[in-house]
Amino acid sequence: MADLKRIAVLTGGGDAPGLNAVIRAVVKTAINEYGCEVLGVKNGYDGFLEPGGLITLGHDEVRGILPRGGTILGTANRGNPFARKVIRDGKEVVIDVSDQIIQNIKLSGLDALIVIGGDGTLHTAQEMYEKGVHVVGVPKTIDNDVGGTEVTFGFDTALGIAMEAIDRLHTTAEAHHRVMVLELMGRDAGFIALHAGIAGGADVILIPEIPFKYEVIARKVMERKARGSLFSIFAVSEGARPADGEQVFSREGDQVYVARLGGIGQKVAEHVEKVTGSETRVTVLGHLQRGGSPTAFDRLLGSRYGSQAVRAAAEGKFGNMVALQSGNVVQVPLKEALAVPKRVNLQGDAIKTARALGISLGDG
Amino acid sequence: MADLKRIAVLTGGGDAPGLNAVIRAVVKTAINEYGCEVLGVKNGYDGFLEPGGLITLGHDEVRGILPRGGTILGTANRGNPFARKVIRDGKEVVIDVSDQIIQNIKLSGLDALIVIGGDGTLHTAQEMYEKGVHVVGVPKTIDNDVGGTEVTFGFDTALGIAMEAIDRLHTTAEAHHRVMVLELMGRDAGFIALHAGIAGGADVILIPEIPFKYEVIARKVMERKARGSLFSIFAVSEGARPADGEQVFSREGDQVYVARLGGIGQKVAEHVEKVTGSETRVTVLGHLQRGGSPTAFDRLLGSRYGSQAVRAAAEGKFGNMVALQSGNVVQVPLKEALAVPKRVNLQGDAIKTARALGISLGDG
Amino acid sequence: MADLKRIAVLTGGGDAPGLNAVIRAVVKTAINEYGCEVLGVKNGYDGFLEPGGLITLGHDEVRGILPRGGTILGTANRGNPFARKVIRDGKEVVIDVSDQIIQNIKLSGLDALIVIGGDGTLHTAQEMYEKGVHVVGVPKTIDNDVGGTEVTFGFDTALGIAMEAIDRLHTTAEAHHRVMVLELMGRDAGFIALHAGIAGGADVILIPEIPFKYEVIARKVMERKARGSLFSIFAVSEGARPADGEQVFSREGDQVYVARLGGIGQKVAEHVEKVTGSETRVTVLGHLQRGGSPTAFDRLLGSRYGSQAVRAAAEGKFGNMVALQSGNVVQVPLKEALAVPKRVNLQGDAIKTARALGISLGDG
Amino acid sequence: MADLKRIAVLTGGGDAPGLNAVIRAVVKTAINEYGCEVLGVKNGYDGFLEPGGLITLGHDEVRGILPRGGTILGTANRGNPFARKVIRDGKEVVIDVSDQIIQNIKLSGLDALIVIGGDGTLHTAQEMYEKGVHVVGVPKTIDNDVGGTEVTFGFDTALGIAMEAIDRLHTTAEAHHRVMVLELMGRDAGFIALHAGIAGGADVILIPEIPFKYEVIARKVMERKARGSLFSIFAVSEGARPADGEQVFSREGDQVYVARLGGIGQKVAEHVEKVTGSETRVTVLGHLQRGGSPTAFDRLLGSRYGSQAVRAAAEGKFGNMVALQSGNVVQVPLKEALAVPKRVNLQGDAIKTARALGISLGDG
Repeated sequence: MADLKRIAVLTGGGDAPGLNAVIRAVVKTAINEYGCEVLGVKNGYDGFLEPGGLITLGHDEVRGILPRGGTILGTANRGNPFARKVIRDGKEVVIDVSDQIIQNIKLSGLDALIVIGGDGTLHTAQEMYEKGVHVVGVPKTIDNDVGGTEVTFGFDTALGIAMEAIDRLHTTAEAHHRVMVLELMGRDAGFIALHAGIAGGADVILIPEIPFKYEVIARKVMERKARGSLFSIFAVSEGARPADGEQVFSREGDQVYVARLGGIGQKVAEHVEKVTGSETRVTVLGHLQRGGSPTAFDRLLGSRYGSQAVRAAAEGKFGNMVALQSGNVVQVPLKEALAVPKRVNLQGDAIKTARALGISLGDG
Repeated sequence: MADLKRIAVLTGGGDAPGLNAVIRAVVKTAINEYGCEVLGVKNGYDGFLEPGGLITLGHDEVRGILPRGGTILGTANRGNPFARKVIRDGKEVVIDVSDQIIQNIKLSGLDALIVIGGDGTLHTAQEMYEKGVHVVGVPKTIDNDVGGTEVTFGFDTALGIAMEAIDRLHTTAEAHHRVMVLELMGRDAGFIALHAGIAGGADVILIPEIPFKYEVIARKVMERKARGSLFSIFAVSEGARPADGEQVFSREGDQVYVARLGGIGQKVAEHVEKVTGSETRVTVLGHLQRGGSPTAFDRLLGSRYGSQAVRAAAEGKFGNMVALQSGNVVQVPLKEALAVPKRVNLQGDAIKTARALGISLGDG
Repeated sequence: MADLKRIAVLTGGGDAPGLNAVIRAVVKTAINEYGCEVLGVKNGYDGFLEPGGLITLGHDEVRGILPRGGTILGTANRGNPFARKVIRDGKEVVIDVSDQIIQNIKLSGLDALIVIGGDGTLHTAQEMYEKGVHVVGVPKTIDNDVGGTEVTFGFDTALGIAMEAIDRLHTTAEAHHRVMVLELMGRDAGFIALHAGIAGGADVILIPEIPFKYEVIARKVMERKARGSLFSIFAVSEGARPADGEQVFSREGDQVYVARLGGIGQKVAEHVEKVTGSETRVTVLGHLQRGGSPTAFDRLLGSRYGSQAVRAAAEGKFGNMVALQSGNVVQVPLKEALAVPKRVNLQGDAIKTARALGISLGDG
Repeated sequence: MADLKRIAVLTGGGDAPGLNAVIRAVVKTAINEYGCEVLGVKNGYDGFLEPGGLITLGHDEVRGILPRGGTILGTANRGNPFARKVIRDGKEVVIDVSDQIIQNIKLSGLDALIVIGGDGTLHTAQEMYEKGVHVVGVPKTIDNDVGGTEVTFGFDTALGIAMEAIDRLHTTAEAHHRVMVLELMGRDAGFIALHAGIAGGADVILIPEIPFKYEVIARKVMERKARGSLFSIFAVSEGARPADGEQVFSREGDQVYVARLGGIGQKVAEHVEKVTGSETRVTVLGHLQRGGSPTAFDRLLGSRYGSQAVRAAAEGKFGNMVALQSGNVVQVPLKEALAVPKRVNLQGDAIKTARALGISLGDG
């Protein structure tokens, strides 16, 4: 049992609904259960490098944040958090600041550092742990692609937003006899498109895990028309790709362009319109999927994660990540969790259900 | 592998969001995968006794029902479905119609009967199975009190509605410096109050599994006032009870009264107002918790359950219930599932989290 | 044109969604357009009597409050704000503190006082104005019963919540063949029940402006059953009353009881169940109608009201109230606006529409 | 008073939330009040030209459609409804089918034709009226750009969706210190961007009625950064244009492209990112604005419009359009209503409010 006197919490990567619930639970659990001081690290690891980057978090600072999206700590989202551009001898060079961060963590007298983030952020957390930092990880992902846990917070809220979008497109599709293509988040894992597509009653679902054929999806539209259903709804992961083509997305890139201008949703729509003659429209849901007030599920899971992470720290269980398994929040080694990223199980019952409902997955 | 030619589906007990998703998935899976005819049984088991009680369900009948609450089949909700009042020799007597139902099921030439319902309905399904009917069960419960599965459809929607109510009460509580008591469903299991209470940031949560003391909850309100928080929010299961008292609820009783007129929420509020002097108001959420469009989670789970139930029937796995375990929909023997009803785990991390957040569970 | 150097804003009566939008617009308009200082008065007029009752409001204080329900200033809600119980010579006596308040307003050096409130609060604002205070009123009411304006903020949010409740009850009513009675706010004016009832597809709507007959509403249920519609939905204002009876509500009374325990919804339900034999349930929506994040309409109207109130003050138009007329926010004399409270127009097209849709208003 | 024996109703142009409420009210009012037969015209005027294009609408056909978006009649949306491509002598020619439609209307024995549509559809309704058809118009528009009425149904629902999107973008903008640009509907009228922008707390609002300068909006972002607000939210009408440039949108065009690929939102974002250095993202809300269940306001207004349109027909008031004025649904001559399309009033209090709140309208 470690004696917790001072801990810090940081949020890395893209924002997700439920981050504030985790922060709030960390603060309250640390204070109420261990009388421990909590520092918030601003803007990811940058907070360890900049003056004013560490702020004290007490009951007042976390009041009223439970229902709010985003993160009160800010985040940084630009690839490797340890790589930093500096000017040396008049030239811009990239230096590794990880040792400096570790030194500052030690100088801060932290008994533990709770790192909330996705795959990338958790990998760097594991690196920090290997270099001696007392890290506890909290998984966060909209796409649900982090291993070691059945699900993470943020996903349920995104799923609800995606399904609501499908519900809305349905009415226009029916009224206008159109094919409506909805491009959803999911670079490598198709959970959002698969789950929202089933829940929203989509006719075609395309996910990264199952390369699709253009002729198969066009055939689906034609079959529906032949049976009198003059409209169709497509739920498409941004990372979906044709069996004979490449992924075309560019989410969160360096450019200002509409997230997937010319992305896969667009390509699918163009093909379907040309082949089937049905008027087709594309909607890219983009950032709307990660914003807004978290669902009850995400607020609860975030709270349980945050609270459990502090208990893990108090037990000295560093290098671990909190995780949801069989309805319980447990701890798993970060290394293990990160070894295999999570993907849709192609033999699982969700995929079977999609097919049984008559949904085309593009591979028929 | 049973040869499925004709199956039937019925919904029993109180309605729950997601029932239509199950029915739709049963119909589509049976037709698409097995070329099987599907009959819908109207108004619970009554449909086997009344003319017109069995209707054919095809693609057209289930079109557009996925986002809709309730059940297109109707339900019956009056205790023992096999007990029926009839007039014999001028007197009203209660007779057991279960044999007649079983006979009619056999006459209907059903290869399987898919029964969607809560604890009560599933118990009768087990009885039917023991009498030779080819039953597959699908668990349904707002309260989340069915064993054998981590969660059932309906609960997530109810949870969201309950949390939203807490969010709404918060603003009034703060503006008026009031104690707001919200009475929620949960006769024997406190999942809705516990989960919605954590997700909504309640100050006191009272559940059937933890008998409470009036002085403890009043003390919580006083402590908050002393720290400058002039309002408090209570999430109270209808089945909550004082350590030295009895349960007082009367949900779904024979009377017309506001569900819990004089229920536990009312009693708690009276006590708190008297002892603390804080203006206190009660809201009974009641039927609103089981209505409206299901969440993505419930539509997806309902769809997976319905589809899996047909697969179970096709495999001849009768006497089983579909269930969610570790993220997968599996089958468990009905008997086993019903042996131990589910209750909040008092040693689980959700309860620990509630306490760590400073929430009073009434037993301090 | 008055020179605005310092103004104050207070909120009185029950909280309503949109109050924070008004406060925010008052603060921003005063600072941005007039370089004027703004004070917030805490807890209604009480803020003028208690130490710390006046706080400075700047950009920081109103950041992030636009989407939030309630009021950051708090409110008082206990009848006459000028009557105060004090102990004199060992006895409790009620004294009039209005002169003391007026004196404190003058001592505070206020150029204007913006009062946001309903009928009661605006009446006292008019009194203050007659005693020389530079008052500008902003109408606020959930019930939409303030004269002089077509609508006020708070009503649209309440309407949406009420309609959503009807949508939810529909599914249960249909599944269980029940009569569902929903009791809604509206002590003297039936706008919420009328508008939500039409929007939600209710079968019976009872409002204070139209005394109803029990036999008429029971007949409606029977007629529906005869046509095969085994369920019915009632939207009932708390102030509805039978033609031969009295109003029975007791909203916001001194007691802790569930708002309308034994209220009119309950009485209607008992009667209908007895006469028609249909299982009947009552839901009292209560405080849920005034909570939560305001709709776009209410946030916009609140913002326009707050901004216009400051402009009115700058123009020296005291004794006026801002109001919405024909889509524009204008000013009307408080006295005029308060002369005739607003009621449902029994000859208007909304009532005609209700009847044409086949809705019973209880007076057939 | 015309004797109504048979009327027809059609929906033209893009779908809008509330269309089904109008259709339902037309059917119920015609049957309940006048014992009149109602025909539904499928897919706009096309229904008069194709076999099966007219269907009987009774109570059963409109059951359950009140909460549903879209239109049960379908619509056509391709410019001039009277122009039709046919093959003559082996060549494709465009012919005018208006006389044929008028002839079929007369052959159908219709006493009145209720036409629900936007600016374009109502103009053709006026043409039909001038050629002797007994037309009553019902205004429909998401953009709120139809004259003669204060507002039409569909707008309130779109507004709510747009504001919710702004709420969601806020959390990401804050967490990541980004500029988030939201492109909204509004080709010629900026009501959605203006109203949702105020209601959502946008920092910059660009509408077609106020040509903007790029340097002004970039300056706004820089000023906010200087004051420590590292993020900004832009609400941009698709029809917004720079003072020295042209409109670039191409909504509802013939192509399949993402609605405004390279639209004005994109251009604004590119400019702002380049000049200010702030990471900038664009979201195009597109079709999501017109889908989903209508708000209470839109369901109520649609119901009142539909009911009033039948009363107008019964009074023989043809060539009129129903309209909302000062809270009442009245009738105005179509010709008058169409003479001047509605635009944002640049001297109105909404614009004043936006400026007073510190929002940049791009013209500073």
